[in-house]
Amino acid sequence: MNYQVTTALIIGAGSGLSASIARLFAAEGMTIALAPRQVDKLSTLSEEIGAASFICDASKPDEVNELFNQVEQKLGVPTVVVYNPSLRIPGALIELDPIEVAKSLEITAYGGFLVAQAAAKQMLKLGSGAIFFTGASASVKGYPRSAPFAMGKFALRGLAQSIARELAPQNIHVAHFVIDGVIRSATRLEPPDKPDSFLDPDAIAQTYLNILRQPRSAWTYEVELRPWVEKF
Amino acid sequence: MNYQVTTALIIGAGSGLSASIARLFAAEGMTIALAPRQVDKLSTLSEEIGAASFICDASKPDEVNELFNQVEQKLGVPTVVVYNPSLRIPGALIELDPIEVAKSLEITAYGGFLVAQAAAKQMLKLGSGAIFFTGASASVKGYPRSAPFAMGKFALRGLAQSIARELAPQNIHVAHFVIDGVIRSATRLEPPDKPDSFLDPDAIAQTYLNILRQPRSAWTYEVELRPWVEKF
Amino acid sequence: MNYQVTTALIIGAGSGLSASIARLFAAEGMTIALAPRQVDKLSTLSEEIGAASFICDASKPDEVNELFNQVEQKLGVPTVVVYNPSLRIPGALIELDPIEVAKSLEITAYGGFLVAQAAAKQMLKLGSGAIFFTGASASVKGYPRSAPFAMGKFALRGLAQSIARELAPQNIHVAHFVIDGVIRSATRLEPPDKPDSFLDPDAIAQTYLNILRQPRSAWTYEVELRPWVEKF
Amino acid sequence: MNYQVTTALIIGAGSGLSASIARLFAAEGMTIALAPRQVDKLSTLSEEIGAASFICDASKPDEVNELFNQVEQKLGVPTVVVYNPSLRIPGALIELDPIEVAKSLEITAYGGFLVAQAAAKQMLKLGSGAIFFTGASASVKGYPRSAPFAMGKFALRGLAQSIARELAPQNIHVAHFVIDGVIRSATRLEPPDKPDSFLDPDAIAQTYLNILRQPRSAWTYEVELRPWVEKF
Repeated sequence: MNYQVTTALIIGAGSGLSASIARLFAAEGMTIALAPRQVDKLSTLSEEIGAASFICDASKPDEVNELFNQVEQKLGVPTVVVYNPSLRIPGALIELDPIEVAKSLEITAYGGFLVAQAAAKQMLKLGSGAIFFTGASASVKGYPRSAPFAMGKFALRGLAQSIARELAPQNIHVAHFVIDGVIRSATRLEPPDKPDSFLDPDAIAQTYLNILRQPRSAWTYEVELRPWVEKF
Repeated sequence: MNYQVTTALIIGAGSGLSASIARLFAAEGMTIALAPRQVDKLSTLSEEIGAASFICDASKPDEVNELFNQVEQKLGVPTVVVYNPSLRIPGALIELDPIEVAKSLEITAYGGFLVAQAAAKQMLKLGSGAIFFTGASASVKGYPRSAPFAMGKFALRGLAQSIARELAPQNIHVAHFVIDGVIRSATRLEPPDKPDSFLDPDAIAQTYLNILRQPRSAWTYEVELRPWVEKF
Repeated sequence: MNYQVTTALIIGAGSGLSASIARLFAAEGMTIALAPRQVDKLSTLSEEIGAASFICDASKPDEVNELFNQVEQKLGVPTVVVYNPSLRIPGALIELDPIEVAKSLEITAYGGFLVAQAAAKQMLKLGSGAIFFTGASASVKGYPRSAPFAMGKFALRGLAQSIARELAPQNIHVAHFVIDGVIRSATRLEPPDKPDSFLDPDAIAQTYLNILRQPRSAWTYEVELRPWVEKF
Repeated sequence: MNYQVTTALIIGAGSGLSASIARLFAAEGMTIALAPRQVDKLSTLSEEIGAASFICDASKPDEVNELFNQVEQKLGVPTVVVYNPSLRIPGALIELDPIEVAKSLEITAYGGFLVAQAAAKQMLKLGSGAIFFTGASASVKGYPRSAPFAMGKFALRGLAQSIARELAPQNIHVAHFVIDGVIRSATRLEPPDKPDSFLDPDAIAQTYLNILRQPRSAWTYEVELRPWVEKF
């Protein structure tokens, strides 16, 4: 990148992917701000990497604005913001609870808008920045019995594409990551006879870092990542 | 199609496209139900084609359920439902009003979910039906300064794709129409030196009818329509 | 369409789809020219619908030019040309015969270019026309153990997209049909317990006709067709 | 990656991008084999990085097989092969020379097949490897007055997608790079008032290296790269 990344703000920091990104970015010398929905999920990680923690429901405009204000005051304008939250509500169309579906859209997509807007406001003043969105296979293919996740992830991709076109010429790097497969975690390990069939979150994080480091003459807007044996 | 279409329910019936679809479907002998947000938009059309009119804010679960109950009681289960509503909020990302953006998503995408769910509940009992969604160029390309519309139309396409995969094997034909260009209306005519450069809503309606008539051995899930001189 | 279609030229006329298109277009009053690779495949059909038959290897520039010359002399400029030929060479990448792969590309894609060029030369003089390409699921998804077909069908779609953008503003309607599934034929019928699970070629032909009839204010460039129970 | 890359074979090594990839991969300790169509283009580069040079017309089966035999004998099985050649024939559809179009397809797409096949034969014996294809914006969008390039680059993407699905589960990493924009060179520099508006080939090469290094639990099949100010 053509700017110094000093502060990384990771939204939806309760997942293993968020933890891997946080650790890797911290190891690169960045100051890390974590913003999970519930702070207790992250106390160990925060201590480990010396991160600042904030509680934020990213689907609430006021909470998002308050988060960015606090981060700016304590750590300065975040130079990269990663949006990870999503809420998957599986089920047959006719059995879905409309209230749950609305919540799924709010967390998966609308929160992405709120965070992107707050980030852009600060970054445009600074003259640079990066906004990364974590997508899924559902971002590009609507699977049956999974309408809410398809809606949310498609919407998030529409947001990313629109603001990539809008903000890139203003020196803000917007990227969308299509994560296709199961992410490995302590409680979700691939079968021993199928090595590397789940995505290693550290490997995903490395690609986030590589794309963050791209000079602006060759920016990636979209990249996909999947295990070698994943069907697609 | 392999069933008799007797009742067509058109949601978001305030637009010129809705009127063209209603007229054409009526001329084919279907009973028409119109469900605009405000009923006064349609009194003339309703009289003209003998349609039943209902008021419905399609982004409200209760109003959608009430609408489908009333249509079923008065006209029988609708055998084709067309979802047209959308709310476009243009503007630079940082200038958008979050409340307006939420409203845009509700009308453009969430209402599509509510209508599809209510339609599917009735159609699955009947064993057949068709659910059509009106998309836009924004359904497949996120334009700058138009993030909310990109989000809403991408989400609607994700919904359509997901439920096409889910419902087609249950004999319900789901189709998504990518309308790319300006639709001609009385108040929005193309320049005289650029004939046919806006989409004729009657021509669009004809394609809706053609796809409705497809036998299930060769169903279209997605089709695009644009004027001959439209850039894409 | 905004012109009278009088002559339809169908390339690769040995398939069941070609026969269905020929019959339907003839029933609509069009004069039909059939151009299979080997004429004996079609003698019965030609008689049945009073079609003119030509032999043409569409992957040979000279033969294609000669074909269009003859059609123009005998029947006038074809107002719609349909390109159906393809050659599928399945197999693992490392087992494919490079000569066969080259032939597959020539028939599936290069012939499409030759035909489109010859058609455009005549149609641009006339000021109107339509060029239709038959694609497959392989046009948009590269399946394993099917590299040559993916190459050929992707290439044909690239051609169609390029010349749709180039020729549409010159009043020539270019359309690409994504046929996703098995086409039913006398020797290839779906299982009795899976009705309509293969594409009826007459149903496909009807969609070709419907798109041919579109006025230019609302032209389809791409449409997909698949059986109701087809996975996608 | 989960294997040691020792030898990189770069096909179509006459371009600035090839030179950048060669230099970067050499700096990482790899042995480099360059295979341009004409060897004199590369004598300086070969000396500079200690690369082995081969002459190869990649659209000829015999020359491709001979190339891979020689590389294997002299340097061992190449663990990464990069396919860069393309031939762009711009022009209106009706003005194109069919012989030139055929040549364009051979160099842009058919050569990619030949190289991939030869590479796969060697890599499958070894049990690992990487095959990278350089695409363009024309890989995903068919531009007017550029039918041959659209055909060739679409076909190359179809190939890449097919064999990615086929070979990835056999531990061969296939990736397709969508390069969208003008690549900077000594003779083609961006305007001084539009800094970084052309792609820096060294920056592109860095992304090739990053993707080569991915562990197989998180492989990229497709990635796009474009300058910050490029329209898309």
